[in-house]
Amino acid sequence: MNEAHAQLVQMTKMLKNLRRWLQAGIAHAEAKKFDPAVLLTARLAPDMFTLTQQVQSACDGVKFLAARLSGTQAPKHPDTEATFEQLFARIDAVLGYVEGFKPEQFEGWQERTITMAFLPGKGAKAGDWLHEFNLPNTYFHFTTCYGILRHNGVTLGKTDFIGPVTLHDL
Amino acid sequence: MNEAHAQLVQMTKMLKNLRRWLQAGIAHAEAKKFDPAVLLTARLAPDMFTLTQQVQSACDGVKFLAARLSGTQAPKHPDTEATFEQLFARIDAVLGYVEGFKPEQFEGWQERTITMAFLPGKGAKAGDWLHEFNLPNTYFHFTTCYGILRHNGVTLGKTDFIGPVTLHDL
Repeated sequence: MNEAHAQLVQMTKMLKNLRRWLQAGIAHAEAKKFDPAVLLTARLAPDMFTLTQQVQSACDGVKFLAARLSGTQAPKHPDTEATFEQLFARIDAVLGYVEGFKPEQFEGWQERTITMAFLPGKGAKAGDWLHEFNLPNTYFHFTTCYGILRHNGVTLGKTDFIGPVTLHDL
Repeated sequence: MNEAHAQLVQMTKMLKNLRRWLQAGIAHAEAKKFDPAVLLTARLAPDMFTLTQQVQSACDGVKFLAARLSGTQAPKHPDTEATFEQLFARIDAVLGYVEGFKPEQFEGWQERTITMAFLPGKGAKAGDWLHEFNLPNTYFHFTTCYGILRHNGVTLGKTDFIGPVTLHDL
């Protein structure tokens, strides 16, 4: 198993799960007869990101996992989304980008050094960056998207968060 | 690198981060002159777990990562905590358990089949269980602990969530 590619496949699934949570948010708003757009600016705290920003950040986390661990340049997404439709388009753009990656594009990924713009002069080994920064950070944004929607009454459960798990008969 | 052990080390750090978030919660309550125990029953939605249950679930996620991927039996923790002190003791018990694991105890971990009590007759390959269930689920509980505290006004930021990242000079 190629860990980098396996985590990218998992994060691809999380993006598809996120798409369904947002659709449940729209359905909830329509059932309650409020404008779904109200949800886009909801936050868990005044100094936390909005739902829109949480979605953008989750998208970036997945995109950068693919780009950084394969040593390639990620496409730019300037965070201009202001509607659910635009967020779905953002998710689909990232899905289209990451679903094109093959396991062999991550060969030797553990030898890479990852740099971060906000930490000039410093680098992290790719494994440390994946385990200590990218995964916790991206799961933070996915979970906070889910938490904002749940806090606003959207009907979702843990199985919606986790999505399908690959099982076999014993 | 041994992925199973590397993720356990990362989750050990997350438990230590969680300890600090809870301490920040107590400090916030004391500054605002309310009983810190109020935070323990706080939830993001009426049908989501309380802070206490989120902490217990995060602890279990880390404990089971170590036990299942090493093919050993986890210690039992019966979810009886009702105070911050008892939650700190639970976190410390799990830290004491997982910090005893050495990388070689996870040798051949990818060959293991993981079973789940709620899915009789089914099993998951250890890598699938780690990537598709254990990590997203445990990060869900860590993030929701953080979200509940932030939603209740506790002063924390993303660097508190992530904790220290292993860096080197370029």
